[in-house]
Amino acid sequence: MDLLGIQLPIIQAPMAGASGSEMAIAVSESGGLGSLPCAMLSPEKMREEIWAIKKRTNKPFNVNFFCHKPAKPDPAREREWKAILAHYYDELGLNVQAATPSAERTPFDTQACSIIAETKPAIVSFHFGLPGDELLARVRGAGCRIISTATTVAEALWLEKHGCDAIIAQGYEAGGHRGVFLKDDFANQAGTMALVPQIVDAVRVPVIAAGGISDGRGVAAAFALGASAVQLGTAYLFTPEATISKIHRAALLRATDESTVLTNVLSGRPARGIVNRVIRELGPISEDAPAFPTAAGALAPLKAASEAARKNDFSNLWSGQAASLAKEIGAGPLTRKLAKDATARMEKLADVAWL
Amino acid sequence: MDLLGIQLPIIQAPMAGASGSEMAIAVSESGGLGSLPCAMLSPEKMREEIWAIKKRTNKPFNVNFFCHKPAKPDPAREREWKAILAHYYDELGLNVQAATPSAERTPFDTQACSIIAETKPAIVSFHFGLPGDELLARVRGAGCRIISTATTVAEALWLEKHGCDAIIAQGYEAGGHRGVFLKDDFANQAGTMALVPQIVDAVRVPVIAAGGISDGRGVAAAFALGASAVQLGTAYLFTPEATISKIHRAALLRATDESTVLTNVLSGRPARGIVNRVIRELGPISEDAPAFPTAAGALAPLKAASEAARKNDFSNLWSGQAASLAKEIGAGPLTRKLAKDATARMEKLADVAWL
Repeated sequence: MDLLGIQLPIIQAPMAGASGSEMAIAVSESGGLGSLPCAMLSPEKMREEIWAIKKRTNKPFNVNFFCHKPAKPDPAREREWKAILAHYYDELGLNVQAATPSAERTPFDTQACSIIAETKPAIVSFHFGLPGDELLARVRGAGCRIISTATTVAEALWLEKHGCDAIIAQGYEAGGHRGVFLKDDFANQAGTMALVPQIVDAVRVPVIAAGGISDGRGVAAAFALGASAVQLGTAYLFTPEATISKIHRAALLRATDESTVLTNVLSGRPARGIVNRVIRELGPISEDAPAFPTAAGALAPLKAASEAARKNDFSNLWSGQAASLAKEIGAGPLTRKLAKDATARMEKLADVAWL
Repeated sequence: MDLLGIQLPIIQAPMAGASGSEMAIAVSESGGLGSLPCAMLSPEKMREEIWAIKKRTNKPFNVNFFCHKPAKPDPAREREWKAILAHYYDELGLNVQAATPSAERTPFDTQACSIIAETKPAIVSFHFGLPGDELLARVRGAGCRIISTATTVAEALWLEKHGCDAIIAQGYEAGGHRGVFLKDDFANQAGTMALVPQIVDAVRVPVIAAGGISDGRGVAAAFALGASAVQLGTAYLFTPEATISKIHRAALLRATDESTVLTNVLSGRPARGIVNRVIRELGPISEDAPAFPTAAGALAPLKAASEAARKNDFSNLWSGQAASLAKEIGAGPLTRKLAKDATARMEKLADVAWL
């Protein structure tokens, strides 16, 4: 909390496409750490959103970027992917020959870096590793604390070595894209309960627990495991500040512990979401999905047409495994409630007298 | 603890083939709940082991059984499996035409039930659901508390409805066979952090957390999540009471957070173990593996020959995802240390003052 200058150790996960400045402001104003996801924002929109936050809160906030290496174009593979999807295009009356829309996930680049240098947010976080040394040095030079995500102890050690000020330990339960960056295999990704203490033991920087935490019990558990803060995504999708579709919200409200899987068919990288038709029929894991983020491009027209008919067949219904614990509540009140419930839980635990 | 008559809420997981009466005695005598796994014991050995425990402790202990429906013989599939393994037989100089050994995992039956009625252990636990109503009634009639494992909320509700006195919530991190019994799919199995509170909210009976817990931090975290006790397996494999091979022990000592996967190639059912050659080359999941426990039969000669050459290529190296947190220590001292460390952790958490 001292490192990040926050009052409550609750970080709202940046969720590209699912939250913007409104949520970040509400969370930071309530004493937690609000986050602005920039992976799907144009430079203009990015600047506008950061200034919107700065105008409405003096509290620290986090600006988040993807830093994947953009996939080399692979027209043959993309054609095959479209061929696999062709019958869906036919079914929805869409022209499979039309140009494939861009997948719209921009990695951190010099332009984004200039916006950071100009706006100087207190914290900048990355997903999928870290950007190159030069860009990272510029972010540090702007006075920003740097955070990134590890899904393994090896990734945590790599991030510490490359200068991260804190590390998010992202357990298997987490919704959305896994931050995995040192390997392609993810059959051995550890759950939060196992991952957090192993990363805590391996690094000296503070560890932020993420994955499967949606209420005060999870927050208290994360601290029991040695975390210094928690990051929650799914719980914040239930707030009015979430910029998700009605279709996504409806799926979240119905979600159980069994609703989600890790899939690569929606974007080309493993991400956890609620099972829908495309995951069921082509996934959850498909070797045919083109590299991230290309796979999403050819799905975009299907998603749009399907959602217009109120169907979630091709939608990214990102969710962690603990959606059923979340409540519909504002992002600010949620932040305070998580801290309050966790505190009550931890006080109660101290009453245990086994020995 | 009241329900089971124990002083410490620490349950040693029954691990078929990896522990016997010695470990159960040590754990129960230390105040936790020792468990005797019977899935790989003959009726004679089972009776002998239970009486050995009764002779050396007056404390409650748990006797554990598998209750899978034995697979119908499927000679064609078993022949295919052997054909897939044939080159390994050749490589090790073994005769692939020799009769396949039995896979030796007996489900709970009338004979085992008679031994329970005769020996009346305080607790009987099951894996893969519950036995039929008649057998279950006899176990209850013997005065035993009944426990089983759920990997989903639906399974927990089923177990509660069928009269379980307590339910083990087995998270994705757990080593050995997943207790999953209501479905075949396991791509959506939840991690401990997400699973425990969802099961706690769904049932009225006490919930025992399992999966990814190997030290006092995990125990404290499980209680934060609402568990009434914890069950640990992997941590007890590091004790001298564990009846595992040197090869298994060596693999555990080297294990990291990334060492294990869920695989079905070793037995025909999903189980978590340390990746070895057969998992790497045929799995982790293979549609060719015959139904549980048949797949293990044809691997047995390969395992024996390979282990004789000090290789773990075909061994069941069961482990959860938190082996690296475990310490080499006696089963009794481990039980007390887990309770002590968890208590210290919980007392420390109460000092938090965020609000």
